[in-house]
Amino acid sequence: MEAITQLSYALDTFYFLVSGALVMWMAAGFAMLEAGLVRAKNTAEILTKNITLFAIACIMYMLVGYGIMYPDGGNGFIPALDLGFMFGGDNSVDDVLKSNGETYYSGMSDFFFQVVFVATAMSIVSGAVAERMKLWAFLAFSVVMTGFIYPLQGYWKWGGGFLDAAGFSDFAGSGVVHLCGAAAALAGVLLLGARKGKYTADGRVNAIPGANMPMATLGTFILWLGWFGFNGGSELKLSNIEEANAVAMVFVNTNAAAAGGVIAALLTARALFGKADLTMTLNGALAGLVAITAEPLTPTPLLATIVGAVGGVLVVFSIIFMDKLKIDDPVGAISVHGVVGMWGLLAVVLSNPDATLGAQLLGLGTIFAWTFGASFIVWLIIKLVMGIRVSEEEEYEGVDIGECGLEAYPEFTGSHGAGR
Amino acid sequence: MEAITQLSYALDTFYFLVSGALVMWMAAGFAMLEAGLVRAKNTAEILTKNITLFAIACIMYMLVGYGIMYPDGGNGFIPALDLGFMFGGDNSVDDVLKSNGETYYSGMSDFFFQVVFVATAMSIVSGAVAERMKLWAFLAFSVVMTGFIYPLQGYWKWGGGFLDAAGFSDFAGSGVVHLCGAAAALAGVLLLGARKGKYTADGRVNAIPGANMPMATLGTFILWLGWFGFNGGSELKLSNIEEANAVAMVFVNTNAAAAGGVIAALLTARALFGKADLTMTLNGALAGLVAITAEPLTPTPLLATIVGAVGGVLVVFSIIFMDKLKIDDPVGAISVHGVVGMWGLLAVVLSNPDATLGAQLLGLGTIFAWTFGASFIVWLIIKLVMGIRVSEEEEYEGVDIGECGLEAYPEFTGSHGAGR
Amino acid sequence: MEAITQLSYALDTFYFLVSGALVMWMAAGFAMLEAGLVRAKNTAEILTKNITLFAIACIMYMLVGYGIMYPDGGNGFIPALDLGFMFGGDNSVDDVLKSNGETYYSGMSDFFFQVVFVATAMSIVSGAVAERMKLWAFLAFSVVMTGFIYPLQGYWKWGGGFLDAAGFSDFAGSGVVHLCGAAAALAGVLLLGARKGKYTADGRVNAIPGANMPMATLGTFILWLGWFGFNGGSELKLSNIEEANAVAMVFVNTNAAAAGGVIAALLTARALFGKADLTMTLNGALAGLVAITAEPLTPTPLLATIVGAVGGVLVVFSIIFMDKLKIDDPVGAISVHGVVGMWGLLAVVLSNPDATLGAQLLGLGTIFAWTFGASFIVWLIIKLVMGIRVSEEEEYEGVDIGECGLEAYPEFTGSHGAGR
Repeated sequence: MEAITQLSYALDTFYFLVSGALVMWMAAGFAMLEAGLVRAKNTAEILTKNITLFAIACIMYMLVGYGIMYPDGGNGFIPALDLGFMFGGDNSVDDVLKSNGETYYSGMSDFFFQVVFVATAMSIVSGAVAERMKLWAFLAFSVVMTGFIYPLQGYWKWGGGFLDAAGFSDFAGSGVVHLCGAAAALAGVLLLGARKGKYTADGRVNAIPGANMPMATLGTFILWLGWFGFNGGSELKLSNIEEANAVAMVFVNTNAAAAGGVIAALLTARALFGKADLTMTLNGALAGLVAITAEPLTPTPLLATIVGAVGGVLVVFSIIFMDKLKIDDPVGAISVHGVVGMWGLLAVVLSNPDATLGAQLLGLGTIFAWTFGASFIVWLIIKLVMGIRVSEEEEYEGVDIGECGLEAYPEFTGSHGAGR
Repeated sequence: MEAITQLSYALDTFYFLVSGALVMWMAAGFAMLEAGLVRAKNTAEILTKNITLFAIACIMYMLVGYGIMYPDGGNGFIPALDLGFMFGGDNSVDDVLKSNGETYYSGMSDFFFQVVFVATAMSIVSGAVAERMKLWAFLAFSVVMTGFIYPLQGYWKWGGGFLDAAGFSDFAGSGVVHLCGAAAALAGVLLLGARKGKYTADGRVNAIPGANMPMATLGTFILWLGWFGFNGGSELKLSNIEEANAVAMVFVNTNAAAAGGVIAALLTARALFGKADLTMTLNGALAGLVAITAEPLTPTPLLATIVGAVGGVLVVFSIIFMDKLKIDDPVGAISVHGVVGMWGLLAVVLSNPDATLGAQLLGLGTIFAWTFGASFIVWLIIKLVMGIRVSEEEEYEGVDIGECGLEAYPEFTGSHGAGR
Repeated sequence: MEAITQLSYALDTFYFLVSGALVMWMAAGFAMLEAGLVRAKNTAEILTKNITLFAIACIMYMLVGYGIMYPDGGNGFIPALDLGFMFGGDNSVDDVLKSNGETYYSGMSDFFFQVVFVATAMSIVSGAVAERMKLWAFLAFSVVMTGFIYPLQGYWKWGGGFLDAAGFSDFAGSGVVHLCGAAAALAGVLLLGARKGKYTADGRVNAIPGANMPMATLGTFILWLGWFGFNGGSELKLSNIEEANAVAMVFVNTNAAAAGGVIAALLTARALFGKADLTMTLNGALAGLVAITAEPLTPTPLLATIVGAVGGVLVVFSIIFMDKLKIDDPVGAISVHGVVGMWGLLAVVLSNPDATLGAQLLGLGTIFAWTFGASFIVWLIIKLVMGIRVSEEEEYEGVDIGECGLEAYPEFTGSHGAGR
């Protein structure tokens, strides 16, 4: 039996590590998606932001975030910092064997899986504020978001806090990760304002096309792949028949929802614009994925497809609606992760008998209110201290030259460039 | 012993899920490969096609295809539709324990692995018909191909149909997947005709270079990686010494064949054209992979290298020959997956003592005849109902604007663009 | 117990295969990184080099390298070639069961894991000699490097040779892989000379910007992901609590070091140049990864972050210093893999009590001296026989046309191209 426990521990740990590696890969997905959807002149800066925010997330979550989100035995509103795991080792063989199955995988593998989630939440923000935010203002916000804002609301649900106690259900984070990221993004966008030329005085909305659609498509495929780790790993255990079945179900439903989102967004865009809009189709895939994230286990694959498809319809209308409100979000992140994240939280009640609409609304409201409020204050402080928006001239020239001192495509864009 | 069965079930299920995720990733590979090999003006459309066909494949295979290909206890020529698995659950613990090892992994994980194969077959088609087919005609064909044409021939071999009974051997699908996709592509291409300007009246063949070679190379690397799941997962079991050895052998041989294909195609192209043609080299890698797919287990790594190398030589000559026949296949898909797929089926007899040339030819002929014939009829119906070719003007302007309403690289291609 | 042994063997084999697939993926990472950092006119050639060197590495290591590096029972300075494994099978069930745990995973899975390491070492070279080396000279060197130069020094450490006996410690290859690749690159660069226009007669250094920064960033993310296989797989065993904990620790530390490298390089570049230099930031990530590779197990995550951060600072200064020496390395490979590889070897003593500075210096010196010396001779012979540098005219026109007969981006670069 001891040999079984050892092997089982190894398998569950490996499952966490593989899942975590897939989620880490999502960082590349966000980077490519966003780099493809902005103009050439702002591409190097968004790449810099994306790789740096990942690094900041890893360091801040290690230093403080993980301790806030998963306090050992902590249960207060603001748990104490816990740096212990960094200097101690992992579970001892004796402790595992004596735990009667309670300790069944490496704590380090859990940290690895959790840390890449934080980065995901933060990646959502970078797209929404693209093409006009100061790089260093963004990075300053990243420090606070990944070290404090995200971990605290994460604690309320996944760390065993009051949202968990209230019956709020969020399997892999339609709320804790995606809505959280979108709420932080919204706060930033409201303080930042729209890009020059996006909305004209006479009420027209100018489309500002992305410079590199294969990159954006690649990013979407990377995210789709990574989501198997994101949702699949969130079952948190694999090593028996029941758990293995559950993980497989999560894979199938995650894939089905993305497929539903693609088709629904494609058809919606076609109905509205008469064209097979690639950008909307990509956002449809992501919307399907976000929608199923709150509950990828209990639906049938058919229901999962429908949940994703509703997300795909929603995201198209939401993107149009955001433009009506003059909320300028170059990549549609607030719609994909925020609006559809909310839908995902509500859709849990369709298949999970333990979920209630009340608890879902409580969780949705809490996460949004906390993240939006806290983020707004932090963005405001940063705005007052160092400013958050680049100069008009720098925005016109592109933030790449101003912030990074180089161009993303120095040979491809001549004077004919549509975005200059 | 029960604990062993549970753990073993979990490991085999995980192996299926990881393999399936790698095959899903091949969808990104085809998208990038094809996007890199077409002209800039037709790039957004091929991206739209690739992500949408994946979604269609997932939905159609769930709704009807899987039931046709793997009917429960069914053995007729046209098996009944079986939607059962979608509304039931997965294997119960009791059933697994009582099955004496027959039921050893999650049914959902099997569905996930199978569904990404369908998408692979369909992805092959999109490249061959690129740059002049109507988007919606292609999507209509995708529905029939992934729901009916592919699953039926898949049933004949992998579902336990007559090809399986006849001793036809096709480990991971040189025939069932690759030749099938290529045959459907060929039928489409014949009805569609060549791109304007590809073949001149005086018999010259114009090279139409792809717009983005790093993308095409990335796509090839993605496919190479994904193939470890494609072939590696097709052993269908991992959880004991013999099976683990087999899976490892498949990995090594898959890699060796790809390597052989690269070198052979590079040298062949160099001998013929005097240059190290990157496009041919990439096709060589894919040819090696296709060639070994029918039997990646029984060859030694040296033989696998040779099987791949023969594929690499074949693909170069086949691409030249197709142009002689005025069969216009912008990415060489018919050569890579069809011609080399046939070679792969025949090469099985070199190392697998259970295979016979007769059975291999029967399988090859059946798959080609069925898929080509059925596809031809479906393409023809679509042609009559809605047309399959865009207008000359749209072809000249590029299908991106006409079909998708956007450009893939709005800032990179000025009036100097080679493809305009 | 036999069932446990079987299952455990399967899990360890799977762990090797998944790790190996991730390392194979690094080949794509190097290809994208290097393709992004060179000028458009030299992009197709570097892609050709990268996919071909991977194929050469696979074939040469199979034919001779693996036998040199891991001779069965061999212990001489120049071990005999051993082709045995290619024609025999894998471990028999009986042998495994009788081995008392000594034989615990598939030999083929070990070969697969090892072969992708060779390719990594060779990939390092291609970037440093980019934009002016003859393609076929490079490929000729690849044959010798992957078949002989790398395997012999690999044998000294990992095959159980004299460096291993001397107590030299190199967990996953800061020395055996990265320093080795960089030393071979340095020898080539010294014989090859700088690109035209890089260093002017009056002592100025011209920056030659890369053509496609999203590609370079993608390459970095791919390498970051692949490194989890590179370092994570190098623990060589997963299947019990202690080993699973170790693998998890390696994942966390590998990630932490990369994060540290990003932040440190970003801040160093900002301090020196006043800008958030994306290229330096990417090199910082890679430097962090190289630095931790010699010892990713024994540091705490905080120390791993610091080891990576020191690498990130070092790489920026090293790149500047190389330019002062007029050592022209277009992608910074010698700095990232060589200089930081040395730092990684020395940093082992910070946390691993079994390592001594003396043994580390012995290993460092031996690997550098052997690889640099042997490579210099081989490059020199190639130079005498066929020449290693393209003509001035070909360098000006770009090596793509001359070597590959095609352009990487035929539609994107007009007469306005910065690099023409």
